[in-house]
Amino acid sequence: MKFQDLIEDRIRSVDAALNFYLPGENVYPQTIHRAIRYSVFAGGKRMRPLLALFTAELFNPDWKRVLPASCALELIHTYSLIHDDLPAMDNDDYRRGKPTSHKVFGEGTAILAGDALLTYAFKILAGHTFTENDFNYSYNHNVTSQLKLKVISDISRAAGLGGMISGQVVDMESECKQVDEATLDYINMHKTGALLAVSARAGAMLGGCSDEEAHIISVFGTYLGKGFQLVDDLLDVEGNEARIGKATGSDSKQGKATYISIYGSEKIRYLRDELYQKALESLEPIKNRNIGSSNLMNIRELARTILYRDH
Amino acid sequence: MKFQDLIEDRIRSVDAALNFYLPGENVYPQTIHRAIRYSVFAGGKRMRPLLALFTAELFNPDWKRVLPASCALELIHTYSLIHDDLPAMDNDDYRRGKPTSHKVFGEGTAILAGDALLTYAFKILAGHTFTENDFNYSYNHNVTSQLKLKVISDISRAAGLGGMISGQVVDMESECKQVDEATLDYINMHKTGALLAVSARAGAMLGGCSDEEAHIISVFGTYLGKGFQLVDDLLDVEGNEARIGKATGSDSKQGKATYISIYGSEKIRYLRDELYQKALESLEPIKNRNIGSSNLMNIRELARTILYRDH
Repeated sequence: MKFQDLIEDRIRSVDAALNFYLPGENVYPQTIHRAIRYSVFAGGKRMRPLLALFTAELFNPDWKRVLPASCALELIHTYSLIHDDLPAMDNDDYRRGKPTSHKVFGEGTAILAGDALLTYAFKILAGHTFTENDFNYSYNHNVTSQLKLKVISDISRAAGLGGMISGQVVDMESECKQVDEATLDYINMHKTGALLAVSARAGAMLGGCSDEEAHIISVFGTYLGKGFQLVDDLLDVEGNEARIGKATGSDSKQGKATYISIYGSEKIRYLRDELYQKALESLEPIKNRNIGSSNLMNIRELARTILYRDH
Repeated sequence: MKFQDLIEDRIRSVDAALNFYLPGENVYPQTIHRAIRYSVFAGGKRMRPLLALFTAELFNPDWKRVLPASCALELIHTYSLIHDDLPAMDNDDYRRGKPTSHKVFGEGTAILAGDALLTYAFKILAGHTFTENDFNYSYNHNVTSQLKLKVISDISRAAGLGGMISGQVVDMESECKQVDEATLDYINMHKTGALLAVSARAGAMLGGCSDEEAHIISVFGTYLGKGFQLVDDLLDVEGNEARIGKATGSDSKQGKATYISIYGSEKIRYLRDELYQKALESLEPIKNRNIGSSNLMNIRELARTILYRDH
């Protein structure tokens, strides 16, 4: 299968699983389910699920066992976008070319939709793994309860005070201030890097990797996380508005510190190349293990897709 | 030990455990930790932790094994109060006699403090059980991973779309509308009842009860949940403002439907007595099992404390 076809195939599986988990729009009370589905199916690139599925496949052909965790990661990501866009936070009217949740459903419902997504993510993580009855799923699932708890613990750290939330706090506090490189790194590695890194790590763990391998994949995920934000900042000044779905230059308009203001675009491109190389090198130690070369090629290709995206 | 002393002793343990879990106010970024501690230690009555600890003790002398889950339940309760008080929701300036989180820290930080508490609750639920090194804890803990997952799943349902969040959605949508009894029951059983019921249930389960006993305790918790809201509505019109910590009559001022408008205070008192009796009767089937009569007396006494409170 061509890589782009593989990506699309996996995204279809993730979307089908998300659709399976989320209550329909006709379930009472309808407003919240409409708001949830509006944001979850707003055209996200599903990068966190893809990362988890591809790192799992390094260690296990049974990638479907990671669909629940992949969905949970996407729900947590979606909740964070809804809350970040609120007037009290980044006050964004558009996201992926569509009005943000609070513009459509009002602030109260948007806050609750975010809360519901976060809560539901943990229900999914604690819940059943897919069985034969779901999606014609034919592998045996042998994710132990202990492993699930470890993944819940890791994800809650990365989504909470040990990651995303602390990043957003410092980001908010840094608005319209002169921010040094260390603070900017802190913001980005916490706000976006932590969830990306844990997506890679959780996938590998659910795939059955060893502790040592989990560490290797975490390092890989951390390079990706850092690179991801560099590219985001680059796209914010140079991207195609139609493809990004929001106005370019919006970060600087909001007085947000970005890597552009510290490095400029030229150096960002150089740093991106460097991080991409480091990410690939970080995978070297697992190269000679019992891992199919096509799976290793896929995860490298995914890293390239994430770091050299144009939207 | 006198019952009131027992309650105070257990609350001290819960507070010590909460203090153990929550990062200090000097941990970077300080704002979020200050905001979290401000609300968690704002004088809450710790009803959900108490319920979990007392139902656990029906089945197991080792109530300390339920301290982590008790803390998680209190953090989820606290998060829900912070978000409910936001201007986009109930727009309350005071809670327990103190300015609400967003009045002190701003809306953005209040939203994030709630998010952080919810996320951290699941980290605690997935995490370690207390061992000998914590709190001079000398019992062996044998909460299995599978049981922890079951509790996480139950709590996320009750805190999420299957409970609290759906209740709050319907509550918001009912403001300034004529609300019938069925809708009011839906709001209350979801918004407050579900988390109270799951507190009782989770405690019993972590105490090692059977599935049948878990069901009995759920029914008990559901009566308490319903009664709790009746009393809340009664206190809103008749309570002592100083003891409740907010202006009485605030619900009707906000156009909120309450049991007062449907039943009047006289009938509420009657219904409360009835629910209290039903709660006690629901415990009858476990009376003759291997349960210490003093533990059964304690849980009855706790039900009385909750349903006949004056603040």
